[in-house]
Amino acid sequence: MKKIELAHAEQRRKTLPLMSKISAINGNAAQYPLPSWSDTAAKRAILDFVARVTNDAGPDFVPVGERIATFDNDGTLWCERPIQFQLFFALDRLAQIAEHLPQIRMQQPFKAFLEGDLKTLATFAKREAFEFVFATHAGMTPEEFSKAARKWLGAAKHPLFGRLFTECVYRPQIELLNYLRANGFKTFIVTGGGIEFVRCFAEKAYGIPPEQVVGSSNKTKVSMCDGEPVLFKLAELNSFDDREEKVNNIHLHIGRRPILAFGNSDGDLAMMRYAVTGKGKRLALVLHHDDAEREFAYDRDFRLSPLAEALDRASEYGFSVVSMKRDWKSVFDSGD
Amino acid sequence: MKKIELAHAEQRRKTLPLMSKISAINGNAAQYPLPSWSDTAAKRAILDFVARVTNDAGPDFVPVGERIATFDNDGTLWCERPIQFQLFFALDRLAQIAEHLPQIRMQQPFKAFLEGDLKTLATFAKREAFEFVFATHAGMTPEEFSKAARKWLGAAKHPLFGRLFTECVYRPQIELLNYLRANGFKTFIVTGGGIEFVRCFAEKAYGIPPEQVVGSSNKTKVSMCDGEPVLFKLAELNSFDDREEKVNNIHLHIGRRPILAFGNSDGDLAMMRYAVTGKGKRLALVLHHDDAEREFAYDRDFRLSPLAEALDRASEYGFSVVSMKRDWKSVFDSGD
Repeated sequence: MKKIELAHAEQRRKTLPLMSKISAINGNAAQYPLPSWSDTAAKRAILDFVARVTNDAGPDFVPVGERIATFDNDGTLWCERPIQFQLFFALDRLAQIAEHLPQIRMQQPFKAFLEGDLKTLATFAKREAFEFVFATHAGMTPEEFSKAARKWLGAAKHPLFGRLFTECVYRPQIELLNYLRANGFKTFIVTGGGIEFVRCFAEKAYGIPPEQVVGSSNKTKVSMCDGEPVLFKLAELNSFDDREEKVNNIHLHIGRRPILAFGNSDGDLAMMRYAVTGKGKRLALVLHHDDAEREFAYDRDFRLSPLAEALDRASEYGFSVVSMKRDWKSVFDSGD
Repeated sequence: MKKIELAHAEQRRKTLPLMSKISAINGNAAQYPLPSWSDTAAKRAILDFVARVTNDAGPDFVPVGERIATFDNDGTLWCERPIQFQLFFALDRLAQIAEHLPQIRMQQPFKAFLEGDLKTLATFAKREAFEFVFATHAGMTPEEFSKAARKWLGAAKHPLFGRLFTECVYRPQIELLNYLRANGFKTFIVTGGGIEFVRCFAEKAYGIPPEQVVGSSNKTKVSMCDGEPVLFKLAELNSFDDREEKVNNIHLHIGRRPILAFGNSDGDLAMMRYAVTGKGKRLALVLHHDDAEREFAYDRDFRLSPLAEALDRASEYGFSVVSMKRDWKSVFDSGD
């Protein structure tokens, strides 16, 4: 072979793994979308919905700017068991605080956090647990918080799966987000979790930038330090983004009613009903965790974030139920 | 000439006006940006800043996702005299309410609104005036509000200029927004005006979609009507997006510190200081209304939205002052 041909052969060898990734991306986005979704009713409902709202000759066409899709995060885009991951992050912070403030060791829910008592933690209501969690970072600047959260996310591991929490995102949902964006949708997270915490990983994990993350928040305050305005996090709750508050916050942050909403608990019920009761073609999906083998099986029994009404009345409300066991070929990005 | 040549000539004739528009667009965005800006220090500061943050080989490079630019609206993107335009909109609504609730005719600031007493209105503080204004649409759904606002914006005219309020937007600012977007910036409005009101025209007037408008807001509430969740506007203020609250809301809605901020009053001071005190290359601009001939000349004397500290301490704070008279070749899109 000539020198140039040898060089090309070497180039091909080196780029082969990359080429197969390119092919996977193209394949996912266009000809064979949602490869990790089984060929069941849920997948067909998604494909049919997207085909209708993007067909500019059909009666269900929706202009690009109005193709708003909202996703819950905990239990919808990534795992939320044994407890929501942000609670683990707060646990680390509480341990540091307890060194200076030992009396919190005796008081619930701090006690349960500090003793790693996940069973007791799982009996709290979501708002109850999160309100304490958010306060553990009061007094920090957003920059300090972000640094601490990114450091934790880069090192802490899931207690059962033994891998990074950011590796506990659901592969079928990443495919769905990509597929929607490839079809002109703008994808938003609307989470009960802390808006700043989710913003620390949403761009890398889901391709969703900070300004498209809506979530719970504490108040902030601008103080003058050395003649410059500095933002500080306060202990006081600004908004707990759960149930009806998700609708208020969608209106406040996005200003348009979503045409697609995806959730997994009754905390997402109002958001899903708000989506489907708008005019025109709509789609709401509920993820049912019924897969004890690959992930977890739970619904109304998980007090931190129960799924009951949204499951019981799914057909009445016009929701498509997605069964993790039946509708997903794989669960996690890193293989199950 | 052959038939085909005749057809082509006809085509050319028909597309000529379009071609010149294409040329204008290309020219604006690339070779000769900001044609309505005079070749003065303000324009050079903008061009220099954009060149630096987009040069990926230079020390001031900023990745696309972090190129966040925030603009005030009243007095920055469109005119705000004799009073902010939303106050005129509320005036119309108040006239309808007064038919059912005549006692408001005797009470300030309703009295001043209903009598069209602009001089008295201009003596109120901005928050004072706007808090009443926002309450005039309480009880409506966002859809009803949007319909009323769009109808008003499509018909009501500026009392002095005699043209639609949406025709009172500043041409140099439209060019600047387009220029920034062509350079990978994401453009946001951060306004003391009502978030829903501004969303009704921002997309068409400025190319800024609803989810990139941050503003003052009243609380909302989800109620069940005929078994469906319906959103209603309440009379209670949620956030008055002025001064330090602009920084809180930028953090809440956008989640990243802007690298460019543009305002025209002390209400924008905190936002501009927040932008320039971040790390790396930053730009903050203050529009000074010093053009009584083509628009208005005012600063500290306009009590509804005074400009004093941001002007007096501009160089200390690192702001570039834009003089409407000196730095803008034209003011309005429709010619001056």
